Amino acid sequence: MIKKILIANRGEIAVRIIRTCRDMGIETVAVYSEADQDALHVKLADEAYQIGPAIAKDSYLNTANIMTIAMSTGCDAIHPGYGFLAENASFRELCDVCGMGFIGPSANSIALMGTKDVAKATMIEANVPVVPGSEGLLIDEADAIQTAQEIGYPVILKATAGGGGKGIRVCENQEELIQGFHLTQMEAEGAFGNPGVYMEKFIQEFRHVEVQILADQQGNTIHLGERDCSIQRRMQKLVEEAPSPAVSDSLRAAMGEAAIRAAKACGYYSAGTVEFIYDEKAGKFYFMEMNTRIQVEHPVTEFVTNTDIIREQLQVASGLPLSVTQEDVMLKGWAIECRINAENPKKNFMPNPGKITQYLAPGGIGIRVDSAAYAGYLIPPYYDSMIAKVISYGATREEAINRMTRALSEFVIEGIETTIPFHLALLQHPTFKSGHFNTKFLQLEKIDS
Amino acid sequence: MIKKILIANRGEIAVRIIRTCRDMGIETVAVYSEADQDALHVKLADEAYQIGPAIAKDSYLNTANIMTIAMSTGCDAIHPGYGFLAENASFRELCDVCGMGFIGPSANSIALMGTKDVAKATMIEANVPVVPGSEGLLIDEADAIQTAQEIGYPVILKATAGGGGKGIRVCENQEELIQGFHLTQMEAEGAFGNPGVYMEKFIQEFRHVEVQILADQQGNTIHLGERDCSIQRRMQKLVEEAPSPAVSDSLRAAMGEAAIRAAKACGYYSAGTVEFIYDEKAGKFYFMEMNTRIQVEHPVTEFVTNTDIIREQLQVASGLPLSVTQEDVMLKGWAIECRINAENPKKNFMPNPGKITQYLAPGGIGIRVDSAAYAGYLIPPYYDSMIAKVISYGATREEAINRMTRALSEFVIEGIETTIPFHLALLQHPTFKSGHFNTKFLQLEKIDS
Repeated sequence: MIKKILIANRGEIAVRIIRTCRDMGIETVAVYSEADQDALHVKLADEAYQIGPAIAKDSYLNTANIMTIAMSTGCDAIHPGYGFLAENASFRELCDVCGMGFIGPSANSIALMGTKDVAKATMIEANVPVVPGSEGLLIDEADAIQTAQEIGYPVILKATAGGGGKGIRVCENQEELIQGFHLTQMEAEGAFGNPGVYMEKFIQEFRHVEVQILADQQGNTIHLGERDCSIQRRMQKLVEEAPSPAVSDSLRAAMGEAAIRAAKACGYYSAGTVEFIYDEKAGKFYFMEMNTRIQVEHPVTEFVTNTDIIREQLQVASGLPLSVTQEDVMLKGWAIECRINAENPKKNFMPNPGKITQYLAPGGIGIRVDSAAYAGYLIPPYYDSMIAKVISYGATREEAINRMTRALSEFVIEGIETTIPFHLALLQHPTFKSGHFNTKFLQLEKIDS
Repeated sequence: MIKKILIANRGEIAVRIIRTCRDMGIETVAVYSEADQDALHVKLADEAYQIGPAIAKDSYLNTANIMTIAMSTGCDAIHPGYGFLAENASFRELCDVCGMGFIGPSANSIALMGTKDVAKATMIEANVPVVPGSEGLLIDEADAIQTAQEIGYPVILKATAGGGGKGIRVCENQEELIQGFHLTQMEAEGAFGNPGVYMEKFIQEFRHVEVQILADQQGNTIHLGERDCSIQRRMQKLVEEAPSPAVSDSLRAAMGEAAIRAAKACGYYSAGTVEFIYDEKAGKFYFMEMNTRIQVEHPVTEFVTNTDIIREQLQVASGLPLSVTQEDVMLKGWAIECRINAENPKKNFMPNPGKITQYLAPGGIGIRVDSAAYAGYLIPPYYDSMIAKVISYGATREEAINRMTRALSEFVIEGIETTIPFHLALLQHPTFKSGHFNTKFLQLEKIDS
């Protein structure tokens, strides 16, 4: 069993990982940038080392420094969390070269799923439904025009190296397509160093439904049901829930099996998420992408399945089998997560870093808080603006909503603006309450917070 | 359904009750003493009124003021929490007289269970096992000697009007008994104005195991399994867990049925707890007392049964049936509660009120915190020293212990001494870890914190 790990991350996910390590008796080494010397993950880890200046590319992405510390402190493995190095196949390979464990899948799985057109081709072969589109990358403008005529407008262009809502563009007609094709290629080259672009039919109204996968190195691959992440603003998830209000038992079984096929097709182990576009009207779902890492919203699944996903990751990375079988997985109750960001919802969600002067997290029945914030903490402006995740659990969706509303009403964060007022307004919105919404909901609806 | 309630309490239990009221859309009225104007329950309730000076008898026990506020603010009912007015049959009657609802059982149930010898006689009639002893009061010395011969030494003499550890005496043999009988009678006459003394077999080593009861006014009475509260210091519970490491499924069923008989025998409704002496060596349990109120340690039961006991109380007080049946109750996992007191474990648990300068509650997977503390809060010296309850939940007892250890290690409370170091030491103690302990454990063992 792994005895000591380095956590190559910061914020709530670093704290989250430290917690399960503590529960399992695994020692932890934190790393931090100059801007993070007072961060909570630094205080909670058994050891902590500065790895560079505030800018992530010189610290949290500084693979040489991170690997040096992992090796010199006698770590068995590195947990990358999400973001930063989590889906960096080169770093994963570096771990192999250095004989350092990696708490996540193989470099091959990461690389395959990180290349969108290869992933899509693999899914087609594995009989996982995909959105109709180009076969692989678009060759040129003429190919783009012809493909769009075949599948019909609107279409969506996607950078093959993109992800997380970046490097994509919707085109309603040929004129937009011609312009968009060149723009997206240029942007992709600039942002990801890879100009490859492919095309898909643009499904205008869909729910974002994703399936949590767990797999071990013994060949066991199971799913923990789905999460609904349709509440998004500019492709960023704000609220997630499990189960999805739109998913029946039979759909869950079908999606779960498709997700397992997807994972097996890339030889997957560790925790991963297969994201689907769910066209509720047509009753059809399509592969969107697979995230080869732990996700921000994993706690909602932990609540409804009563599992510790980080624990499973650590077991699998130790070469042990999963501690649960598919038969053990029983969904019970309902869980919702709200991402609390240091942003001002009244000023177009402008990031609002600064010092937290007062902090009192909510508590009580059915509430879990994953956060690295505390009173006196100065939120640095260099990283993600998420400062806390509040997760509520109840017997029903209504109870989970009510408990979340109560928790957010209690939550004291002073000194900065946060998205709590936005969430409180959203939770009261009749459309949210009804469960009938798709990813366009927040585009169309102004939530007065 | 009840729409608005007054909470005649303070501290974490007032906050606990407010939380479920929020979840259910019930308005709350807080009351507070002069010492509690900055208390968290005052901030969280929809309305709050001062009811008198710091000393509880003039504020939290000031029934006239409390009733006046309940009536003038249009409350449907009063929740007494625990302590203060919770088991005061006269106050319960006052509620009836004033047409004010009471979130708890009837005055009769409270009065019956509050009178030791009547409660015991009722239990015998209801076929609930009681500790062998005299039938009612001892007539004279000869009766005492004969009874002791029948039940066997050691025996314990108890003043019927006694309580709180006063007016009791253990006798190992006939010589001690003769002397002790007269002494106890004299002391009882002097201290309580009532010389009545009865005798019980003295069970030297036992576990404190209690069963959570829920009952409605429709005649449904169920149990939610047991809690083990054997970790006590001077008869005060410090750590509780559910289930008990010493209780098998068949024993649970037998205890549960006995507890239901006990509740039915006093016409019980609302939440209540039947406490048992469990003689682990003999495999026998005996009725100790019934607490006719919500208990401090109710959250461990909420975790393992996935119920909200305060919600059930509010439903029952509204005249609605319980939302769960006995068949619905499935114990799952393990929960532990540590009571965090503002006491100095290094100075014989001396109360340590004062100002909390820094406060950061633990969070993450499997942790619930019920507390009314916050940074800047001045703990008044007038009330109970408990400032927080940390409740951990895990698939197994070991996981619950590990998560509790992690949570207490994270818990930041500065400015005062607390019992956190004691709990951390206890959690590592091999006897505690083994699950093999009884109520004498903390008497015999010094926990180095």
